[in-house]
Amino acid sequence: MTAVSRRRLLGTGALTAAAGAAMSALPASSARAQTSRAAPQDAPNASADVVIVGGGLSGLTAARDLIAAGRSVIVLEARNRAGGRVYGMPLGDGTTSEGGAEFIGSTQTRIAALAKDMGVDTFPTYNTGKNVYYRNGKRSLYATDGILGAVPPDWGVIDLEVALLNIGNMAKSITPGEPWKAAKAEEWDSQTFYTWSRANSLSSGARFLLDEFISSTLSVRSKDVSLLYVLHYIASAGGVDPLINTKGGGQETRFVGGSQEVPLRLAAKLGDAIRYNAPVRGIETTGSGVTVTADGVTVTAKRAIVAMSPAIAGKIAFSPGLPASRAQLMQRYPMGSIAKFVGVYETPFWRADGLTGQAVADSGAIDATFDNSPPDASRGILMGFINQTNIRKLDAASADDIRAAGLDSFTKLYGDKAATPVLTAFQRWDNEVWSGGGPVGIAPPGVLTEYGPALRTPCGPVHWAGTETSDIWTGYMDGAVRSGERVAKEVHAAL
Amino acid sequence: MTAVSRRRLLGTGALTAAAGAAMSALPASSARAQTSRAAPQDAPNASADVVIVGGGLSGLTAARDLIAAGRSVIVLEARNRAGGRVYGMPLGDGTTSEGGAEFIGSTQTRIAALAKDMGVDTFPTYNTGKNVYYRNGKRSLYATDGILGAVPPDWGVIDLEVALLNIGNMAKSITPGEPWKAAKAEEWDSQTFYTWSRANSLSSGARFLLDEFISSTLSVRSKDVSLLYVLHYIASAGGVDPLINTKGGGQETRFVGGSQEVPLRLAAKLGDAIRYNAPVRGIETTGSGVTVTADGVTVTAKRAIVAMSPAIAGKIAFSPGLPASRAQLMQRYPMGSIAKFVGVYETPFWRADGLTGQAVADSGAIDATFDNSPPDASRGILMGFINQTNIRKLDAASADDIRAAGLDSFTKLYGDKAATPVLTAFQRWDNEVWSGGGPVGIAPPGVLTEYGPALRTPCGPVHWAGTETSDIWTGYMDGAVRSGERVAKEVHAAL
Repeated sequence: MTAVSRRRLLGTGALTAAAGAAMSALPASSARAQTSRAAPQDAPNASADVVIVGGGLSGLTAARDLIAAGRSVIVLEARNRAGGRVYGMPLGDGTTSEGGAEFIGSTQTRIAALAKDMGVDTFPTYNTGKNVYYRNGKRSLYATDGILGAVPPDWGVIDLEVALLNIGNMAKSITPGEPWKAAKAEEWDSQTFYTWSRANSLSSGARFLLDEFISSTLSVRSKDVSLLYVLHYIASAGGVDPLINTKGGGQETRFVGGSQEVPLRLAAKLGDAIRYNAPVRGIETTGSGVTVTADGVTVTAKRAIVAMSPAIAGKIAFSPGLPASRAQLMQRYPMGSIAKFVGVYETPFWRADGLTGQAVADSGAIDATFDNSPPDASRGILMGFINQTNIRKLDAASADDIRAAGLDSFTKLYGDKAATPVLTAFQRWDNEVWSGGGPVGIAPPGVLTEYGPALRTPCGPVHWAGTETSDIWTGYMDGAVRSGERVAKEVHAAL
Repeated sequence: MTAVSRRRLLGTGALTAAAGAAMSALPASSARAQTSRAAPQDAPNASADVVIVGGGLSGLTAARDLIAAGRSVIVLEARNRAGGRVYGMPLGDGTTSEGGAEFIGSTQTRIAALAKDMGVDTFPTYNTGKNVYYRNGKRSLYATDGILGAVPPDWGVIDLEVALLNIGNMAKSITPGEPWKAAKAEEWDSQTFYTWSRANSLSSGARFLLDEFISSTLSVRSKDVSLLYVLHYIASAGGVDPLINTKGGGQETRFVGGSQEVPLRLAAKLGDAIRYNAPVRGIETTGSGVTVTADGVTVTAKRAIVAMSPAIAGKIAFSPGLPASRAQLMQRYPMGSIAKFVGVYETPFWRADGLTGQAVADSGAIDATFDNSPPDASRGILMGFINQTNIRKLDAASADDIRAAGLDSFTKLYGDKAATPVLTAFQRWDNEVWSGGGPVGIAPPGVLTEYGPALRTPCGPVHWAGTETSDIWTGYMDGAVRSGERVAKEVHAAL
């Protein structure tokens, strides 16, 4: 393992620009000699200016920017791979398909810039044709974009649209990154989204889709999450439409080769600054900085960045104990329970049927689907989300049971051709010890108003990153990158 | 450290009776020879039939019962003392005063039985005279027992009583230990207690006292907690009155010498079966049982009992990872933020003023008080709770600031005599790394209906105890003892 400083191979020009004004003001030259503190990957001790806990997008981005600013960095990653919640799940035939974070939208400029730097191209999410709406045993098609376009018949249309208008308007009063400062923060944080949605819609169709909005974006039930949290999530994305839409929204494009290409290429550039298979067990604040204990290695540094969700950061033993507000926050920011099931077919047959591959359903294991085929459509890949309660029902299921449940959903939505895939694959995040769930940490009522500032407030030499800490596009890859850029500036300024 | 089996000094007759029918059916004789596996307290390895993580009342009770049933046991305790959330805080003059769990009520029969076995007597909580009600800057006195007797003027009385009647009736439909099975469980778990209380009371006085009910019992805000959780808490206590009252309720009596006497004496009997200063870092499930790694010692055993709150149990690294439902539960069951402030006076001067020493207040650091004087009233001790948001406000306060804030509250409630104590002391639980808060883990909306069964369901050879798992008097010392008795039977039957 090497404490890597600015290296040619990192393409420092682009990196410095990405790190923002504060860092681009730094001298462009930097001690290549600093890279000479080479240590083998199994060295029991190491030191650097900054130790970063977590090799997901936020941690890797922070490492990139700090190195560009002339700091030495060591990244400790629990898994044997980089990327965290960004992951190409193996299909068993030597290829992978999106198992975690996948889409990027047109306003997600920081993940876009990083991907460009890494040479990873994008292509449009397949979005031609009609979507499938399955409810009360009845399948119908609709043309409107996004899951909330799946409006129920008759007056439910108006009911839903009024509710969405209300939500959007409320979200406008929230400053991204500081929901606890909104004038009505206490009121909105005193109730679940379920409570609000029942008081502000009457039709069962609208209520179903409001619940589905929570399920498909957060993979929790609407009763699990604070209204204020949901409003902030919307504000952070720039509105309801950017959040839920495919065209023009957060699901607009995908990465050629899979989203995992971005962190994998960045990790390759960071080289042996990353130590894998090194789950961090303890962070001790000392007089001179921090001592971080991981499996197989102890790292001393001036500052630590914990680039993880609050819930998983809470598994680390901090010494001395963290301030109560941060310690409490980490008990109160649970992860959703997302899973992805994919069926691989010889062709994307649904396209010939005039369908986008996007669907929403009120029954079965899968409640939302996307067309995850590769850009050349050399084969068809249907991806279905198994969200919240639906994954609970499969907690004790065998692989065969899960396959049957997934294909039953696909068949119901896309017909008999869906029943005979070439292969299937499945990735659930609530069984991932080093993620603890997905896509993102959520706040039950009362948390943001009481503990929200602890999301980002440093605790002595310990700083916090991760998509949960981002003001813009929190919960997304873009938010993760932004949090890495923000924390790198914060730490650089503090050093 | 010794894996202790049934020893004479434990008074096996009483222990066997306490362990219930299943265990009393066991042969009364047991291998004293099993105690011979003596190992020094600093031995790096040990083994036993059962390893118990946590030396609070639940863990100690489980150890007692398993030993009485002939099993060998090792208890690993993170602190240098037994008792967990039961703790006599040092007053600085060589004496202690209640810093944690304190009261016992007449229906709390299992803690009563344990205390009797340990030779710890009880005495009535001082309850003669009137209580103080402080609201909107005005101090008044009232005679009704319990904090919710502090009824606001005029029609607020009826308003509050109707709300309490509703709450009590709803709670009657809940089976203690299984709130998720109630007919209306989903509805009640979809909302915060705040949402329900605002929809079911109109007067500000009633609303204040409904919030104070949550604050003084759980040390969270009414917006932090699910209505279903609160109803179950009430059902578990036998009703609203048993929960909130002093006379006839959960606060009726206290322990001579302090509640800590109970776990300390039990721990003394368990002797070197307890290893102190041994925080558990990892629990590995192996083919033959478990391997538990603590600071300084590794223990192998057939079964493990984790006798801790879910939130703190979540800090342990389980290998392989726990089932998702349990892993998620541990992210979703945060601790309250309770603190106790005491002022020690030459005499309990408020008694001469005709006051019980019990008060409820809507402002200041302290929102509820009790008379914590020793049974002989040889000096006067006022105890004030600094709950939820009030302790947040003191997160950055100095010891002097906290003292001033506590005495300001006491003076407001009890007059100028309260301003000049002999000494003061302060104990906050949200800074206790090995408790993570107090008095108890709470469930935000959505948790009990989705994850409730995971509170008690064993995960292979790993079993769960702690007051959070109790059907009766969950959150109290009695619930802790009951959970220890229950888990001992569960483990004994599984061995």
